[in-house]
Amino acid sequence: MERRPRATDTNAADAWLDAVRWDGATGLVPAIAQDATTGRVLTLAWMNREALRLTVDSGRVHYWSRSRGQLWSKGETSGHVQQVRELRLDCDADAVLVAVDQVGGIACHTGRESCFFLRYDDGRWVAVDPVLKDPAAIYGHE
Amino acid sequence: MERRPRATDTNAADAWLDAVRWDGATGLVPAIAQDATTGRVLTLAWMNREALRLTVDSGRVHYWSRSRGQLWSKGETSGHVQQVRELRLDCDADAVLVAVDQVGGIACHTGRESCFFLRYDDGRWVAVDPVLKDPAAIYGHE
Repeated sequence: MERRPRATDTNAADAWLDAVRWDGATGLVPAIAQDATTGRVLTLAWMNREALRLTVDSGRVHYWSRSRGQLWSKGETSGHVQQVRELRLDCDADAVLVAVDQVGGIACHTGRESCFFLRYDDGRWVAVDPVLKDPAAIYGHE
Repeated sequence: MERRPRATDTNAADAWLDAVRWDGATGLVPAIAQDATTGRVLTLAWMNREALRLTVDSGRVHYWSRSRGQLWSKGETSGHVQQVRELRLDCDADAVLVAVDQVGGIACHTGRESCFFLRYDDGRWVAVDPVLKDPAAIYGHE
């Protein structure tokens, strides 16, 4: 009783991760980032178990990049870090919502506040939000 | 020139649906519903091409139920319809955001406003939002 096996401790500590219904094929869940101040939905990206753990441990949102096939600390290149204010799980335990402080006020790689800048208008998707910063300036390209 | 082939008309009209990057394996994209008035993120569900088309055509949000394998008009059983105020697509064209009027103020099958009622707190997920209406009353069960 005095010395509990380390495995038991680890399992107990990971129960919140086990509770998430990771997709059977990909091991991922969709993760929504919402600006804690403005309420604007900023991004929809993906987390695996490690990304969610790192998000909690570091207080900065981490994702799994499906295109690059690797963990991704949001803002690692752009500086546009998402700081965790609150983390939620949905009723089916297969989607995550993170309320964040969006550093720089820019979440999208196009230099816009939100990735959801295309609005449906009469059979077309129209870019309706302003570019706040030139992506070339954000990412240091030509 | 006078009579354009019908196929051409159809293609042109569907360009906005073709622009969406449906998942190669499932044909789905994640769709976020956000309360247009309160800004609360209500649900994360899934749409296929037909669900998105029906959403636009009817002005009511439709999803694809992965568990039931069928189209699903949100609120068809509960009455908690989501009326479309605005529809957006993200920068990668693989996620949808719908601003909605949530009929009844309840989006979740548990009788809560939002499906995201579980908040992370020190290694646990804690239900922090009130049940506004008994699910048995919503769905007419005993």
